[in-house]
Amino acid sequence: MFLAWGRLCTRSCRPKFLKTVGASKILGLSTSAKMSLKFKNAKRIEGLDSNVWIEFTKLAADPSVVNLGQGLPDISPPVYVKEELSKISAIDNLNQYTRGFGHPSLVKALSCLYEKFYHNQINPNEEILVTVGAYGSLFNAIQGLIDEGDEVIVIVPFYDCYEPMVRMAGATPVFVPLRCKPVDGKTCSSSDWTLDPQELASKFNSKTKAIILNTPHNPLGKVYTKEELQVIADLCIKYDTLCISDEVYEWLVYTGNKHFKIATFPGMWERTITIGSAGKTFSVTGWKLGWSIGPKHLIKHLQTVQQNTVYTCATPLQEALAQAFWIDIKRMDDPECYFNSLPKELEVKRDRMVHLLESVGLKPIVPDGGYFIIADVSLLDVDLFDMKDSKEPYDYKFVKWMIKNKKLSAIPVSAFCNAETKSQFEKFVRFCFIKKDSTLDAAEEIIKAWSRQNS
Amino acid sequence: MFLAWGRLCTRSCRPKFLKTVGASKILGLSTSAKMSLKFKNAKRIEGLDSNVWIEFTKLAADPSVVNLGQGLPDISPPVYVKEELSKISAIDNLNQYTRGFGHPSLVKALSCLYEKFYHNQINPNEEILVTVGAYGSLFNAIQGLIDEGDEVIVIVPFYDCYEPMVRMAGATPVFVPLRCKPVDGKTCSSSDWTLDPQELASKFNSKTKAIILNTPHNPLGKVYTKEELQVIADLCIKYDTLCISDEVYEWLVYTGNKHFKIATFPGMWERTITIGSAGKTFSVTGWKLGWSIGPKHLIKHLQTVQQNTVYTCATPLQEALAQAFWIDIKRMDDPECYFNSLPKELEVKRDRMVHLLESVGLKPIVPDGGYFIIADVSLLDVDLFDMKDSKEPYDYKFVKWMIKNKKLSAIPVSAFCNAETKSQFEKFVRFCFIKKDSTLDAAEEIIKAWSRQNS
Repeated sequence: MFLAWGRLCTRSCRPKFLKTVGASKILGLSTSAKMSLKFKNAKRIEGLDSNVWIEFTKLAADPSVVNLGQGLPDISPPVYVKEELSKISAIDNLNQYTRGFGHPSLVKALSCLYEKFYHNQINPNEEILVTVGAYGSLFNAIQGLIDEGDEVIVIVPFYDCYEPMVRMAGATPVFVPLRCKPVDGKTCSSSDWTLDPQELASKFNSKTKAIILNTPHNPLGKVYTKEELQVIADLCIKYDTLCISDEVYEWLVYTGNKHFKIATFPGMWERTITIGSAGKTFSVTGWKLGWSIGPKHLIKHLQTVQQNTVYTCATPLQEALAQAFWIDIKRMDDPECYFNSLPKELEVKRDRMVHLLESVGLKPIVPDGGYFIIADVSLLDVDLFDMKDSKEPYDYKFVKWMIKNKKLSAIPVSAFCNAETKSQFEKFVRFCFIKKDSTLDAAEEIIKAWSRQNS
Repeated sequence: MFLAWGRLCTRSCRPKFLKTVGASKILGLSTSAKMSLKFKNAKRIEGLDSNVWIEFTKLAADPSVVNLGQGLPDISPPVYVKEELSKISAIDNLNQYTRGFGHPSLVKALSCLYEKFYHNQINPNEEILVTVGAYGSLFNAIQGLIDEGDEVIVIVPFYDCYEPMVRMAGATPVFVPLRCKPVDGKTCSSSDWTLDPQELASKFNSKTKAIILNTPHNPLGKVYTKEELQVIADLCIKYDTLCISDEVYEWLVYTGNKHFKIATFPGMWERTITIGSAGKTFSVTGWKLGWSIGPKHLIKHLQTVQQNTVYTCATPLQEALAQAFWIDIKRMDDPECYFNSLPKELEVKRDRMVHLLESVGLKPIVPDGGYFIIADVSLLDVDLFDMKDSKEPYDYKFVKWMIKNKKLSAIPVSAFCNAETKSQFEKFVRFCFIKKDSTLDAAEEIIKAWSRQNS
């Protein structure tokens, strides 16, 4: 504000500015008055400017805060992943543009990897698109396939960008909640949260263009079972609906659970875009590489969006990712393979978080996948008196209070809800546990001290 | 095609697929017939699927072809740029997400650099947005500020993505050509190509939301003079129009010319988005980093688009870029500074290309900036008999013929034109000269041998 004022002030003192203002006045125009009307945002982004990550990342930026907020690993990425990037940075032509729809060696590696799961050949050039993160894949799919007036089914809670992305395309998100089965005081698991098949079916109609699925689920950690996915697949086929399947946590599934790809269900390949992420696969969220896999007749439209938005993704990162994939593709049955070792490492951290939260009287929802755990924090009965005037949901106030007073950050779960369902989830906050032991130690210390104060 | 058929064939043999098809039939649905109608592209990308880079990059991929096509340096990027990336790849937290609107150290470096040219403070957090290349900046600006029904003035020839990006936003591009003044047989320079002020003014009206400016210009190499920019600025102010100023070649200006930023003209800061590129600045096109600079009241809308499309850019590349900038910011008066040394290096290559093309009887348009040179190739009178059936413009046929028969690639200039003006430019092809000497030697050998054959 001060800066902008300073600028105008400095500029208005320049003779040339005065001259131009004079010219405009002669033309009978009042520029500044008109400008405020004409230079507002385009309608497609109206009301889409708030963002939980921007708000809470800023709050958690204080280095004295223990950050269990954003899904941002503070464990080390695999050494070979970092080394590949280091080596590649020295190679001249790998610092220049590559193929727009995916660097050749990366799409080849991805096709080789995923053929093992699809049990079918995947054409690296026509059935895979490399994007700017999974975010970019979601955007390309929605912009390429969803029209104004379409309806898109979104399961609540949902990764927060689904709703604004659907709205930016001029479509209507139609929400359906995961509901918790009664659990009689036992430990609650993410698998206790399910879709009501009747309720889900009631959301489909002739306007339904797509459903966005997320398994393993963020923030709940739910890993959809084969039977649950079959219900969704049947409805997609019945109503001729696309499925955008966000599977970025596909490798991070814990003992007793199995990740299924809905695209491999009969009749689903031809209507499914499956989305993956380098950031989640190799713990390098800062590389911003993701991919969409699907049939040529769908992928080609995502390609058209890509060529008119970013054109191509960073070459050195794509080549390093391809090399990292080859290392792990060759040892997929080996416990050392990162696709196997990371979930083992994270399961220990998940169990630690469960015990920690339970030890202070909370009832966390034990996740079957992903690297988040949510818990109802209203049980802590925190006095949010000094925030009573805020109109924000309870969890927003709670997390802000916790960051300020306890130096511990998390993410409010109502951020993953539409306006109408925020109240159903506002007692929950989400903790991220892909953190090194020292970070979890610090969180444990905070939570235990807090519990001692309360008792 | 074969692959897709193979997949369907394999799948249709699975019992489960048959069962589902059966279920669909019971429901009275003919899935495949309906699907072909419902799963077409969203309307916003209708007709936007062709792309010159994808087509000609594929043709030039043959390693025996000397590639003067895409604007892709084959000179080495500065050693310190590559070394910074190598060092940073080892730092754990620089492989994770960073601030969505620009990595803090990068926006700080950019603000420090550009303040020297704007002669004003630039708020790194509110007046700069780091994007996925300059492409991402263009997209964010157009999607964030241009509405359906708006008109956007585009100067022909234009960097090819401007037109589809404007159309994707539902707006109407209004074209105005650069016209060549008669030059009486002398060497023709890019400065001979100018806008007719009356003609330009006739394109502005109350629906005009923006003009897209490109200086130094691709493909002509034109560096707009202060007087030419003032004409544009006056019209922008008179009609209260935004200016999207693509200045990616800002450092690459040759002896006798000077780059001016229209945003520094009186009354223009508040209505201009200025776009820059790491790829062009440091010869690392594969890093895909760019930036938009402008007033907060405009940049905030580009930020909203970014947070709903890609969210953030790659962290290690942003940090390496910041470090590279600091090295050169500290020595801006030194001839070793890359902003000074690269144009000197390129001017020699430009002159070499001019002499080479003239030596075989062509009349290249000598560029004052950028790293492209265009020439009317119809003077070569190539027999394109075997391509006579193609409905493509002359330059498309010529370049395809040249790649096939001469193993030399370029880009047809009509790719930078709208449908109606392609015929005005179809005699021109564009050669890229940011190439190492051995590449230019190889091109020279091809062109001289070709000339000997003809004489």
